[in-house]
Amino acid sequence: MNSENFALSEKIVLPSYIRQGSQARRSHEQLIRLLLEQGKCPEEGWSEGTIELFLSELAVMDSNNFLGNCGVGEREGRVASSLVARRHYRLIHGIGRSGDIAAIQPKAAGSSLLNKLTNSVVLDILKIAGVRSVASCFVVPMATGMSLTLCFLTLRHRRPKARYIIWPRIDQKSCFKAMITAGFEPVVVENVLEGDELRTDLAAIEHKIEELGAENILCVHSTTSCFAPRVPDRIEELATMCAKHSIPHIVNNAYGVQSSKCMHLIQQGARVGRIDAFVQSLDKNFMVPVGGAIIAGFDESFIQEISKMYPGRASASPSLDVLITLLTLGASGYKKLLSDRKELYSFLAQELKRLASAHGERLLHTPHNPISLAMSLDGVQAGGDRAVTQLGSMLFTRQVSGARVVPLGNEQTVNGHTFRGFMSHSESYPCPYLNAASAVGITQEDVSLCIKRLDKCLKTLRREQEVADAAPTVPPSGQELAAGE
Amino acid sequence: MNSENFALSEKIVLPSYIRQGSQARRSHEQLIRLLLEQGKCPEEGWSEGTIELFLSELAVMDSNNFLGNCGVGEREGRVASSLVARRHYRLIHGIGRSGDIAAIQPKAAGSSLLNKLTNSVVLDILKIAGVRSVASCFVVPMATGMSLTLCFLTLRHRRPKARYIIWPRIDQKSCFKAMITAGFEPVVVENVLEGDELRTDLAAIEHKIEELGAENILCVHSTTSCFAPRVPDRIEELATMCAKHSIPHIVNNAYGVQSSKCMHLIQQGARVGRIDAFVQSLDKNFMVPVGGAIIAGFDESFIQEISKMYPGRASASPSLDVLITLLTLGASGYKKLLSDRKELYSFLAQELKRLASAHGERLLHTPHNPISLAMSLDGVQAGGDRAVTQLGSMLFTRQVSGARVVPLGNEQTVNGHTFRGFMSHSESYPCPYLNAASAVGITQEDVSLCIKRLDKCLKTLRREQEVADAAPTVPPSGQELAAGE
Amino acid sequence: MNSENFALSEKIVLPSYIRQGSQARRSHEQLIRLLLEQGKCPEEGWSEGTIELFLSELAVMDSNNFLGNCGVGEREGRVASSLVARRHYRLIHGIGRSGDIAAIQPKAAGSSLLNKLTNSVVLDILKIAGVRSVASCFVVPMATGMSLTLCFLTLRHRRPKARYIIWPRIDQKSCFKAMITAGFEPVVVENVLEGDELRTDLAAIEHKIEELGAENILCVHSTTSCFAPRVPDRIEELATMCAKHSIPHIVNNAYGVQSSKCMHLIQQGARVGRIDAFVQSLDKNFMVPVGGAIIAGFDESFIQEISKMYPGRASASPSLDVLITLLTLGASGYKKLLSDRKELYSFLAQELKRLASAHGERLLHTPHNPISLAMSLDGVQAGGDRAVTQLGSMLFTRQVSGARVVPLGNEQTVNGHTFRGFMSHSESYPCPYLNAASAVGITQEDVSLCIKRLDKCLKTLRREQEVADAAPTVPPSGQELAAGE
Amino acid sequence: MNSENFALSEKIVLPSYIRQGSQARRSHEQLIRLLLEQGKCPEEGWSEGTIELFLSELAVMDSNNFLGNCGVGEREGRVASSLVARRHYRLIHGIGRSGDIAAIQPKAAGSSLLNKLTNSVVLDILKIAGVRSVASCFVVPMATGMSLTLCFLTLRHRRPKARYIIWPRIDQKSCFKAMITAGFEPVVVENVLEGDELRTDLAAIEHKIEELGAENILCVHSTTSCFAPRVPDRIEELATMCAKHSIPHIVNNAYGVQSSKCMHLIQQGARVGRIDAFVQSLDKNFMVPVGGAIIAGFDESFIQEISKMYPGRASASPSLDVLITLLTLGASGYKKLLSDRKELYSFLAQELKRLASAHGERLLHTPHNPISLAMSLDGVQAGGDRAVTQLGSMLFTRQVSGARVVPLGNEQTVNGHTFRGFMSHSESYPCPYLNAASAVGITQEDVSLCIKRLDKCLKTLRREQEVADAAPTVPPSGQELAAGE
Repeated sequence: MNSENFALSEKIVLPSYIRQGSQARRSHEQLIRLLLEQGKCPEEGWSEGTIELFLSELAVMDSNNFLGNCGVGEREGRVASSLVARRHYRLIHGIGRSGDIAAIQPKAAGSSLLNKLTNSVVLDILKIAGVRSVASCFVVPMATGMSLTLCFLTLRHRRPKARYIIWPRIDQKSCFKAMITAGFEPVVVENVLEGDELRTDLAAIEHKIEELGAENILCVHSTTSCFAPRVPDRIEELATMCAKHSIPHIVNNAYGVQSSKCMHLIQQGARVGRIDAFVQSLDKNFMVPVGGAIIAGFDESFIQEISKMYPGRASASPSLDVLITLLTLGASGYKKLLSDRKELYSFLAQELKRLASAHGERLLHTPHNPISLAMSLDGVQAGGDRAVTQLGSMLFTRQVSGARVVPLGNEQTVNGHTFRGFMSHSESYPCPYLNAASAVGITQEDVSLCIKRLDKCLKTLRREQEVADAAPTVPPSGQELAAGE
Repeated sequence: MNSENFALSEKIVLPSYIRQGSQARRSHEQLIRLLLEQGKCPEEGWSEGTIELFLSELAVMDSNNFLGNCGVGEREGRVASSLVARRHYRLIHGIGRSGDIAAIQPKAAGSSLLNKLTNSVVLDILKIAGVRSVASCFVVPMATGMSLTLCFLTLRHRRPKARYIIWPRIDQKSCFKAMITAGFEPVVVENVLEGDELRTDLAAIEHKIEELGAENILCVHSTTSCFAPRVPDRIEELATMCAKHSIPHIVNNAYGVQSSKCMHLIQQGARVGRIDAFVQSLDKNFMVPVGGAIIAGFDESFIQEISKMYPGRASASPSLDVLITLLTLGASGYKKLLSDRKELYSFLAQELKRLASAHGERLLHTPHNPISLAMSLDGVQAGGDRAVTQLGSMLFTRQVSGARVVPLGNEQTVNGHTFRGFMSHSESYPCPYLNAASAVGITQEDVSLCIKRLDKCLKTLRREQEVADAAPTVPPSGQELAAGE
Repeated sequence: MNSENFALSEKIVLPSYIRQGSQARRSHEQLIRLLLEQGKCPEEGWSEGTIELFLSELAVMDSNNFLGNCGVGEREGRVASSLVARRHYRLIHGIGRSGDIAAIQPKAAGSSLLNKLTNSVVLDILKIAGVRSVASCFVVPMATGMSLTLCFLTLRHRRPKARYIIWPRIDQKSCFKAMITAGFEPVVVENVLEGDELRTDLAAIEHKIEELGAENILCVHSTTSCFAPRVPDRIEELATMCAKHSIPHIVNNAYGVQSSKCMHLIQQGARVGRIDAFVQSLDKNFMVPVGGAIIAGFDESFIQEISKMYPGRASASPSLDVLITLLTLGASGYKKLLSDRKELYSFLAQELKRLASAHGERLLHTPHNPISLAMSLDGVQAGGDRAVTQLGSMLFTRQVSGARVVPLGNEQTVNGHTFRGFMSHSESYPCPYLNAASAVGITQEDVSLCIKRLDKCLKTLRREQEVADAAPTVPPSGQELAAGE
Repeated sequence: MNSENFALSEKIVLPSYIRQGSQARRSHEQLIRLLLEQGKCPEEGWSEGTIELFLSELAVMDSNNFLGNCGVGEREGRVASSLVARRHYRLIHGIGRSGDIAAIQPKAAGSSLLNKLTNSVVLDILKIAGVRSVASCFVVPMATGMSLTLCFLTLRHRRPKARYIIWPRIDQKSCFKAMITAGFEPVVVENVLEGDELRTDLAAIEHKIEELGAENILCVHSTTSCFAPRVPDRIEELATMCAKHSIPHIVNNAYGVQSSKCMHLIQQGARVGRIDAFVQSLDKNFMVPVGGAIIAGFDESFIQEISKMYPGRASASPSLDVLITLLTLGASGYKKLLSDRKELYSFLAQELKRLASAHGERLLHTPHNPISLAMSLDGVQAGGDRAVTQLGSMLFTRQVSGARVVPLGNEQTVNGHTFRGFMSHSESYPCPYLNAASAVGITQEDVSLCIKRLDKCLKTLRREQEVADAAPTVPPSGQELAAGE
């Protein structure tokens, strides 16, 4: 409705009412104006109405929605199914161009705007979440692992001779594979046990760097968010070490945006040393569907180099999801989610502690891990080798998702590398345990139900063990289930 | 509605009516049964109602939609925005697991089913479209370029010594960058001019192989679908050559699924020689949003190797789009689209020919290119250097999208490699020209409007040239616009 | 996006692209402008994108969507469920005010505009469909029967003494009840048999008028669209008679908009005599959900009087449905539907004729009925009393909907009035028969399938009758099913 | 997904995962089972996923969604626009049949089930809200006014001689027109002033009954929910009086479901005397779009009689809205809304009181009105005749909706009856005033903003009056705006 159409409307409906309607329209436009002008996440969330209005405005600017368009190219944004058109708000052209995933498209001004704004809003949120000096970032429609691969592939052009990536061990397959896929040899550095915690072995890393030669090392690949009892890597010290040796430093910050501690580590690392890029998952931090990540850094030109490394266009779907989500929540809504998460972490810790002592177990002491907790399963283990994996199966069946049991002595070979004690980030962690995490979006009910069901399972298990010590149980690939990856 | 609920309903509404309703339900379930049983694209398309019913059934099977679920993991499929949840039909968990993009997820039986079925239905369609002996394929949420990169990265593990990729020149940035990103050195082999057509220089390629040594060559990277006057590579001969030298062969079949000729080339190539994988765009062939590709091949284990190379989970969005689209169209609907496209290719050729001769130009004779056509612009060129790019700007402004003008003498450097005569796939094509393509989904109106507007532009241009030969025009980055990538 | 926002966008994305996007927006606005200016159904249908943009523009103008609104009234357009908000495009305030269903609402400029435009577009379509001199109309969210009641209630205020309504018999309950509900006594005038057709008995009506006295008669209530072998009433002659006696004349044109013949009758009736209002169903004529009607007439003030008789606000849902539908179809799309319907009427007639003669039956000769056809069932009837109703049940079970069988000798009492030969519009029609209609939206496949299944049923029935003349069958309330009301 | 399809799925995805998915499905079916079995509003609300699954299950049972259906009737539930189909969840057939709006439809088992369940769930909610002995009810797609008309039209058949309806005055047009439209003569009985409250004049009513003769009176038409300072009628006493004189009693309970006091009055009235039907708005009580009402009563057969009086089918849209809403909220959610409303009523009263005294006005003492409040405007009035209506305009412009100003001395003629002191329910209320209501869904922010803006307006007004006593202002139909109907 432009002014001409409002004027025409005044002939149909009372002018004073139309004027009020037109004024109401301006208040939506005002929100859009602020977004365009500042490129920041609005403090207060937008209504669904404003969001959909905005998206339909963007769609109108893409050539596939031009009323008079005729297309004789090989890619015209045609859509065969109206279900598909609708679910993408008729934004069909994706993001980027051949040369650069961040480039603007002549055929798709609306999609290009969407892409630019999303990256800008996400950058703002990274600052709000704690990495105040982040310089640049972009959303990429690949999950964390493949995004890390892209970073490594970009570094290859800067360091053509390098073959190794130094990697403090974390038992999660996709970040290991990210290095393999990029064609590098991961140098796995075992963690050290400090109390219950598994922490970065800085000395071993320094030793490795000297042994292999800095010029042969593509980068150090560290991790913040991880399952307890592993804790975030010593990012500050690693960043300092990287600066000293002129080795690039890529941080896997998978679900660390939700934790002020993880974000603080990155902020500090960049301040005192070197962090070239840090990568985070969209789904794990922003409650959107799986499939996107943010690649961010402190040097705009390096981040651009990565974005130019992505060959061709890409799906706009993850960008659209995170933009809708952040506009819905607003900065205040997102901050509220983060503080709720923090509170529920304490609640979860307290409840697990209570439960653990009731069952003769203990909550492992892992104060450096702000998200994940671990409870020992020594008693369960005493019931036999299979009891621990059986507990995993029982929880799965009872719809407790994400509670991951870690037995002793797992061994797994991934792309030629054998991990002893797989899942526990350590060749020989002292005890089997169970993980539970307080991740963004968790509710008090999640915690309470989990504790209740876990309590029941532990009781059942003990009863079973008491009654029939001999009866063998074969859980349906329980360990696999429990792995949770 | 299970049988118990139908029985209860009979107490509320007349049993005979409920029975008919229950019978009607079975006819939807029967369609789903066939899909699950055969894994093929249904011959006749499904109604939107059946599709949405099916998707909501899948969603119900994912843990994020379990009514009694409690989640204490780091990734629970929570969604903050109901707009986002809705547009993904509440399928939030994406596809794949850490180890493999084709793996099934314990937390998401519905999404896993979706993924498997999509790959199976897409395989069926590839067969229908002409590659009858294709053995395996999977949908990957990355566009063609990045998917090619993934293939190259996979091959690296098989051929650790190889550094070069042999590539018959095609002027499209993303396929060139796909090789650069993967860390290889593209060996660009210029095409030969045969009549108006630019064709693969087989002798030069064979020469290059011998010069570099087969063991140093990662693969031959050929192309089917391309802009005229380049035509599809001589896939059969290349496949034979690759077999002879034991060099892998990756085919960029970007928008070739829509052409029986391109598909036939691949089918024949695999029959007589070697094709390791062929990659095609989802959006260009199936009228879905940008951002997905199909990686397919004749050896199931190699295709699995590629799928296992993708580190981590991935977006289900492109899979969902293509599944919805193929269920909507049915095999018959898709075949109809293909035959319509073929007919409109002839119509476009005839109209362009007519127009060309009216303006003293000619339709280049490129019978081997089944999709793209080119019309000479010698007369326009005569009007001065900028006239050709100005034509591009004029068409853009008049909402003719995809009609790409190619001036003489362009030069562009991409990642260190300089392409003389860029955009024309040749260092010195004899004349400037304009491209138009008949791609899937094109309508007769697209063609007619394009011809009409093109006619007007050419007339305007001639008038302008006649009136004021001297007046300089600076089109707003017209060449860039025209590039159309 | 106002001009300020477009200007800001030019700083983010290339100005020339944004300008093209902004120009594209104007082409949508141009369509809206034409609609606002002319109040007519656009000749060509709008895209879904334009329609949804328009509806979201309207919604923005309603106070429940004002961003800064605070509500302390008893009706503020609040919505508890976002599913509900969404399905109504956030247009919550309905239409009308206490005093008048056509009045504009201070709180809802958008909904008011919607209401006005819908009535205006529908008026245009009535003209296009053949009643060129119609002066005024409005959509009312009640089906045909209740809308007729509203007309009668309005007339009561003009003719306080009148107690009777003259009604040429048509066996459809809701139009009979419409008079009862309004508190009047229907004077049922039997039809006369002319060949196979049942037609208005003009002499009997004139006689009744004289017998009862014109001043005691509220109106004549005639019918156009009806099941064969009844044919539309002789509207012209009735209109002349009403004019002569100064008796109001209300026409039930339930599904007559789809037939140029029915519309012509009304146009002619109004030209030569008197028609006060004619009422038509939205769902039967415009392929929208059940629940709305159009009350139209030739005297604007009388139509306004009816609209002011509706006490209070009303649902905007039927208005929204018909507006979306007509904007989607465009005038040309609706005309196409009508001409398709006409052609399929001929096809249905021809197929039924062929089938009838194959089974020793005949297609009744009812040339004045442009929609409904009837085929005799003498042979079926010969098989026993229940055979005819059994045929109805068989068709129902085989998903042939709308094919209505009419046995002889039905008798039904509705609100105290006994109809002998109920369903056949006649106390003693000569033969039982089966009805089939060619209604708007019918497809060739509907006809072919119906003929095929009907053929099978007739054969099965004959076989059963031959085999076991004695075996009694009790169809589950077959007659009821067949009644089809 | 039936068991056969689950079995097939187990061949594609791990059986244990599919089994969990199938089990998850059962938990949704279990909710549906409870609904079908008990016909009650579930205590806890359903998720959007469950609701949409349920609605799609219902739609599948309607003949327009049968995959093999062929239709040759005049009403086949065809839909021209997919936007329209989608927004109605493909439930197209509406509710009811010719004979009865509550009847089941052979062609639409799903829609029939929807209709029955909605009425049943709504009945449950009426009980929960306080009318525990209500026997029957149905949703009708007409707003309160027209629904009252339907009740009066039904009574006419029971009391053919009656011409009058006794109506304690309430200044709201649609309930007055409801009587006029039905063809009766409203006998307006003025209220009596008790303190600030306007209450039913029982003696005057008894007098009128005797004067007119009970047999000439169709019914007493009383009102619960209304604007202060009028308070709900003395329902108990009226019900007793009606029983005594054998006069039917219809209660306009427009927005009374949200107030336990209003509901208690009806419950008590029915216990000690006679209430034939009570009518309530859907939108005002259940936060759904305008356009539906519930007609309820204590004698099932009378309620059925009303439902049978509605001639023909009707829109299912209001039923669908209220069903979705109640399933979303659950009984607990609805009760929460009611208790929130009650609390905010106290908050509003307190805030208004504070504001009033700050401006030298007072909150009128109307303890019998549980929803609406009134604040005197004596001071404003002192500023001149137009000041009061100007305040209305100012509030409208500042997006305070629903705050209705009532000046002295209004006079309005509706259908021939002149109301002196219109809007104030009294010929001469002592002071002008402003209304504000705490209606269901109101938020604390609504109240705070309203108070703040009202404060500003009052200050502005006073300043203006002080500065320029003489300057005349002509608000754009301010009084009309303020009327709020």
